Amino acid sequence: MRKPKKLLNDPNNVRQEVMQGLIYAYNGKLTAIEDCCAVYGNHIITDQVVVVSGGGSGHEPTFAGFIGHGGIDGCALGEVFTSPSPDQIIAVTKAIEKGKGVLFLYGNYSGDGMNFDISAEILAEDNIISKTIRATDDIASAPLAKLSDRRGVAGIMLLYKIAGAAAQIEKYDLDKLYQVVSKANANVRTIGVALDGCALPQSTNFNFELADDEIEIGIGIHGEAGLRRQTMTSSDDVVKQMIDHLCDDLPFVAGDRVCVLINNLGALSNTELMIITRKVGIELKARKIDSHDIVVGHFCTSLEMSGFSITLMKLDDELQHLYDLPCQTLGWRK
Amino acid sequence: MRKPKKLLNDPNNVRQEVMQGLIYAYNGKLTAIEDCCAVYGNHIITDQVVVVSGGGSGHEPTFAGFIGHGGIDGCALGEVFTSPSPDQIIAVTKAIEKGKGVLFLYGNYSGDGMNFDISAEILAEDNIISKTIRATDDIASAPLAKLSDRRGVAGIMLLYKIAGAAAQIEKYDLDKLYQVVSKANANVRTIGVALDGCALPQSTNFNFELADDEIEIGIGIHGEAGLRRQTMTSSDDVVKQMIDHLCDDLPFVAGDRVCVLINNLGALSNTELMIITRKVGIELKARKIDSHDIVVGHFCTSLEMSGFSITLMKLDDELQHLYDLPCQTLGWRK
Repeated sequence: MRKPKKLLNDPNNVRQEVMQGLIYAYNGKLTAIEDCCAVYGNHIITDQVVVVSGGGSGHEPTFAGFIGHGGIDGCALGEVFTSPSPDQIIAVTKAIEKGKGVLFLYGNYSGDGMNFDISAEILAEDNIISKTIRATDDIASAPLAKLSDRRGVAGIMLLYKIAGAAAQIEKYDLDKLYQVVSKANANVRTIGVALDGCALPQSTNFNFELADDEIEIGIGIHGEAGLRRQTMTSSDDVVKQMIDHLCDDLPFVAGDRVCVLINNLGALSNTELMIITRKVGIELKARKIDSHDIVVGHFCTSLEMSGFSITLMKLDDELQHLYDLPCQTLGWRK
Repeated sequence: MRKPKKLLNDPNNVRQEVMQGLIYAYNGKLTAIEDCCAVYGNHIITDQVVVVSGGGSGHEPTFAGFIGHGGIDGCALGEVFTSPSPDQIIAVTKAIEKGKGVLFLYGNYSGDGMNFDISAEILAEDNIISKTIRATDDIASAPLAKLSDRRGVAGIMLLYKIAGAAAQIEKYDLDKLYQVVSKANANVRTIGVALDGCALPQSTNFNFELADDEIEIGIGIHGEAGLRRQTMTSSDDVVKQMIDHLCDDLPFVAGDRVCVLINNLGALSNTELMIITRKVGIELKARKIDSHDIVVGHFCTSLEMSGFSITLMKLDDELQHLYDLPCQTLGWRK
């Protein structure tokens, strides 16, 4: 059996060291609240609603790597695959809130939900108003009838893009920001596939195992079980299955305009990802779905998991305008 | 023994499918010369020297993913880990050359060198003048006394950045462009480390094997033997060894200004890469070397190799100015 092989220092100190690495990678554009493992951007302007996120480490550049001009404003870093605590969320929000309120935008996981909700209540006592959007883009995590049970995965990057453009550049107020990001969340769908698992820093085993000829369709970003395991077929066949699932779900139909995010979950080669990109383009064209933009790379990773995800977001004029605005973050520049 | 696990279509058709994927990923900003597997950007302006590169597939986004405004202009795609042919190089050069000449800029490998030199001779007969720079940044590939024998690795991205800015934005003529990129090449140094090997698409075995507790310092981007194999220690210890090697080589000393490129070779987690980034920042600060900028990500990969490289380029005012200019490519936006 294959064993995880990692280059680390103290496996119990990963999030602190990741945070310190982010500070260097941001070249002076990021400030750390060291004692509570939270960070915020130095781009924040007065008179904007701030967008604060948070989540477990292990998904870099998600979540903190999307801080910046046209991105999010602050982030609380949890331990690997673990929610941040209310202390962290409250500290970063208080450090950056400008009197216009805060949008909490994060993935729909129970621990995150609980800790952000507690934070919102405590902040309300200090007259900091907030609204909350939980990304629910993972179509494999619950049936459409239970949309609000779905988990958030790579699609959250597109919500960050929309939220950052609306809050910072177009100066939406909190109500209007909540409305547009809710619309984006309703329009975004993701599905992932794993070829191999990932391992927590402290672990000597992978968090799931697949046979040499097996893949898992619908994998979650912590290795949560997907829709099914199946025998490996061709790249084109797997991508077609994924696009079928995505298009059936929203649905995405002929004449729709979408932006596309093709995300490497970690260890898949970029060579394979480019071959995947080709087939995504071909499939969308065959369905007469207009690809307004395709971005390809490592956006929301799962440690060293070998796999990828495909995200589609249906655009209307407002979403397209916001999507097209520039952003300058570690994980995404436009 | 671990076996390679890849999601492909025809393993003998990788470069064509990669090229078609690039076309989608570039969203209309890239043109393919389909029958000879070469691509060029739609950004090219009249009155510029064009910068043409090429190399084997399997390193995505290198090489073609650095085409764009402020990047290179055209690229010939070889089969995986194989040089492109003169036919390809000549076709893409003829498609984009503007009468101001062409700078051939690629990694120092014998096959590439031979095929680009043949191309230059044939193009000269058509009155297309060219100059050639071969990146030689890999300090592990030959001793300093044999600098011109060294191979090109991730440092070529920094040369692309300098060349693209100089040719397109500052409109350097061919002689001046050759001089500044030669200076950049003389100032750039890279060292890589592997935790695990990579496998060619057609192969059922990895191209090298390391024991569970073993790493290789100085690995090449095709798995060429490095300086030494050693027992895995801490991330901080490995990074310090690498920075020692880099600083001793040029040398980089207190008071120097550098830009830093921290490159994921493929399958290493971005979490580990961020911890590496932290230590690179700490080490440079301790040596009083000024980090003008640090970029972190997947720039020059080696299929699914688990590992990373660190590149330093010493800056003077001219190089810093060119480095700071914007670029809009698939692999690097600034």
